[in-house]
Amino acid sequence: MSSPQVITLEQIRTALDSIDVCSVMEQAFIAHSNGRSVVPPVGELLIKREPPGEVHLKYGYLEGGSHYVVKIASGFPGNPGIGLPPGNGLMILFDLSTGGISGILLDEGHLTDVRTAGAGALASRVLGVPGSRIGIVGTGVQARLQAVHHALANGSSEFMVWGRDPGRTSALASELGDSGLDVEVAPSIEVLADHCRTIVTCTASSRPLLDASMIRPGTHVTAIGSDTPGKQELDPDVLAASDLVVTDCLEQSRLRGEVARSLESGAIAHDRILELGRILDRTAIGRTDPDQRTVVDLTGVAVQDLLIAEAVLRHL
Amino acid sequence: MSSPQVITLEQIRTALDSIDVCSVMEQAFIAHSNGRSVVPPVGELLIKREPPGEVHLKYGYLEGGSHYVVKIASGFPGNPGIGLPPGNGLMILFDLSTGGISGILLDEGHLTDVRTAGAGALASRVLGVPGSRIGIVGTGVQARLQAVHHALANGSSEFMVWGRDPGRTSALASELGDSGLDVEVAPSIEVLADHCRTIVTCTASSRPLLDASMIRPGTHVTAIGSDTPGKQELDPDVLAASDLVVTDCLEQSRLRGEVARSLESGAIAHDRILELGRILDRTAIGRTDPDQRTVVDLTGVAVQDLLIAEAVLRHL
Repeated sequence: MSSPQVITLEQIRTALDSIDVCSVMEQAFIAHSNGRSVVPPVGELLIKREPPGEVHLKYGYLEGGSHYVVKIASGFPGNPGIGLPPGNGLMILFDLSTGGISGILLDEGHLTDVRTAGAGALASRVLGVPGSRIGIVGTGVQARLQAVHHALANGSSEFMVWGRDPGRTSALASELGDSGLDVEVAPSIEVLADHCRTIVTCTASSRPLLDASMIRPGTHVTAIGSDTPGKQELDPDVLAASDLVVTDCLEQSRLRGEVARSLESGAIAHDRILELGRILDRTAIGRTDPDQRTVVDLTGVAVQDLLIAEAVLRHL
Repeated sequence: MSSPQVITLEQIRTALDSIDVCSVMEQAFIAHSNGRSVVPPVGELLIKREPPGEVHLKYGYLEGGSHYVVKIASGFPGNPGIGLPPGNGLMILFDLSTGGISGILLDEGHLTDVRTAGAGALASRVLGVPGSRIGIVGTGVQARLQAVHHALANGSSEFMVWGRDPGRTSALASELGDSGLDVEVAPSIEVLADHCRTIVTCTASSRPLLDASMIRPGTHVTAIGSDTPGKQELDPDVLAASDLVVTDCLEQSRLRGEVARSLESGAIAHDRILELGRILDRTAIGRTDPDQRTVVDLTGVAVQDLLIAEAVLRHL
């Protein structure tokens, strides 16, 4: 048997240049909402020693597809102290008919970052008011990528950024400015919310940063940061005051993310929540009025990993 | 970051030539029985389409160790029809302190086969009567490897083989004979059991092949084949009539393998079962008399995968 294809991060970055990540995510969410994805529960290995770490295994396939994917992603919070990024990992694509390895993608977590950014840009395109200024809350890798993908995929040209650390906020603003975006630093999250009709939250915050009093009519919020039970960026009253509450995965949002917090607190009811894929394939109705308030909460589903990895393989 | 090491099957085969697999398995079982292994439940992806398949994910680490392992193993029963082996897979070793990839072992399932054979030979060495003739029940890859490892590690020289398919049995006997072993084909499993004081069962049978009436005093049985709830090679009365019932993993043997079947049927009680690692590290007593009947039931534990993968990495 010939050796399977091993794809380096550099090859992945080059392939991504020719991939419309938003379109790939659109296919992923539609397939997911149509019930075509087979995704067992996430596997978890907790490394309870010094230095501690955690490893997540996500895996699954799409009915009618040609591969299954296994994604192994690790987080070691002590890594930056020794000059390494905290996250690492790889994705492996297998032939769905034989189990043979189709490709080993040494993405070091980059494909997860990119598919998350593409999904955020897609959510803002579908629910947000066209042409609105984009407010980015957060200063990390995901904040940068969300801005880039909103510009790339949605043609957004005006940005405002705010983060809890002013130094990191300025650094992000200059970096985005250097790459040709029109970016302003917001002095507070209130000012950002006042000036931006689309807000993308991508922090690791464990307490709400935005509440309903800050959100003007006609605002869309794409919430990215909260993907585990301990994280929260939105006060439940933001979801309660929204005309539309949308998630990538109904089942998962009962356990994780902003929607889970709002269900727990009773701020919203189960029957208020829509799946993004249903709006994308027009079996559910999205924004109907420019003055509506909308929220999309994304916690990430394995079919996004599957389809982005397949797209990379096709574009090598 | 430099590209991680990708190790081909050919490199793995070469490295295995310098590895004492039995000794590695001895360390694995001792570490496991000492409670040093951290092994979450096995992940499972069932591919319910044509052709069907199943994928298992085993992962874990050893306290005080330096790596965690993720093993992805697939079984596609239709593969032989298109000229491919049914099993495939790989193992990935990660740095336990950082999550970095230490090695990607493209073993196509071979390391699982080899570590299983090494574990079988170890079990027969520890519990079997020295110098006895070895009876191999089964004709597949594992039957061949068990014979080879019993010869290699235990110096066994006389073998008898029996399988349900006479053509495959003759083929295995010639193959083993060609590689220098003294092998006889048994006309029936009864004759094999009559002539061999060590019996290794390695079939995928779903009904018992051996019962207590066939087992003479002084016989040791190493049971390999039954690793999932649907498989069985020994009638529960074999375990009931044994002086010692030993397993690789107490917890797992409550759910899988011969021990699980015998517990279910009430043939043996929980407190009769010993862990192999405890006999190996002399915290439990093994065979005390050449006339005793003993059984070791092996269902496979992730720490075997971890240690064999680490050994390969050290011997490249």
